[in-house]
Amino acid sequence: MPSAEHIADTVNRYISLVAKGSADDIAELYAEDATVEDPVGGEVHIGRQAIRGFYSAVENTERDCELVTLRVAGNEAAFQFRLTVKAGDGGMVIEPIDVMAFDDEGKVAAMKAYWSAENVTQL
Amino acid sequence: MPSAEHIADTVNRYISLVAKGSADDIAELYAEDATVEDPVGGEVHIGRQAIRGFYSAVENTERDCELVTLRVAGNEAAFQFRLTVKAGDGGMVIEPIDVMAFDDEGKVAAMKAYWSAENVTQL
Repeated sequence: MPSAEHIADTVNRYISLVAKGSADDIAELYAEDATVEDPVGGEVHIGRQAIRGFYSAVENTERDCELVTLRVAGNEAAFQFRLTVKAGDGGMVIEPIDVMAFDDEGKVAAMKAYWSAENVTQL
Repeated sequence: MPSAEHIADTVNRYISLVAKGSADDIAELYAEDATVEDPVGGEVHIGRQAIRGFYSAVENTERDCELVTLRVAGNEAAFQFRLTVKAGDGGMVIEPIDVMAFDDEGKVAAMKAYWSAENVTQL
């Protein structure tokens, strides 16, 4: 089982990569057969290749991302964060709560993102 | 599928019952075969009777509970809250992030609570 410290480090690395990393870098945090459901209730992206494709949508945007709250328990984490995406003079801020479950190798096995249009603010 | 409004109402009712309700009242929010894992990585309480037993531990304490953040997505919710339990001149504050999945009848089918000793403050 991954340590609480490893889980916290991975979440912090995830946040910094969502801010400034490539889709490849982010996908590398996930297990080969991982799943991503973002938002919960939407399409589930299965496998690292599909997950890379999902993150490539934000890869070339001007953006910032900061961790608000982190809770680690067992081999899972729940965390609130704030993603700002700039677009011309405007943009938007999204503030989800994400949950990640980790596998024995310390890779993210499953991620679920809890947010809806209500949690998006236009800049 | 339960509406986002029903899910938000149930989470708010849960918070007010954790503050002032009985274990019976809280258990009533859950489906008959629901599961509670609190904290994540600990024992899973299966079924409404076991869940009632779990909540009976706080039933007779002096306590308060307030919702900090709520995210509703699909048939699930993630929310951060602050539980204060008084004991004599002292007590403690716990600030978990909980996740709840709802069934088609709008009952809570599964709850998982993300917190550890790091998220407990002694008063």
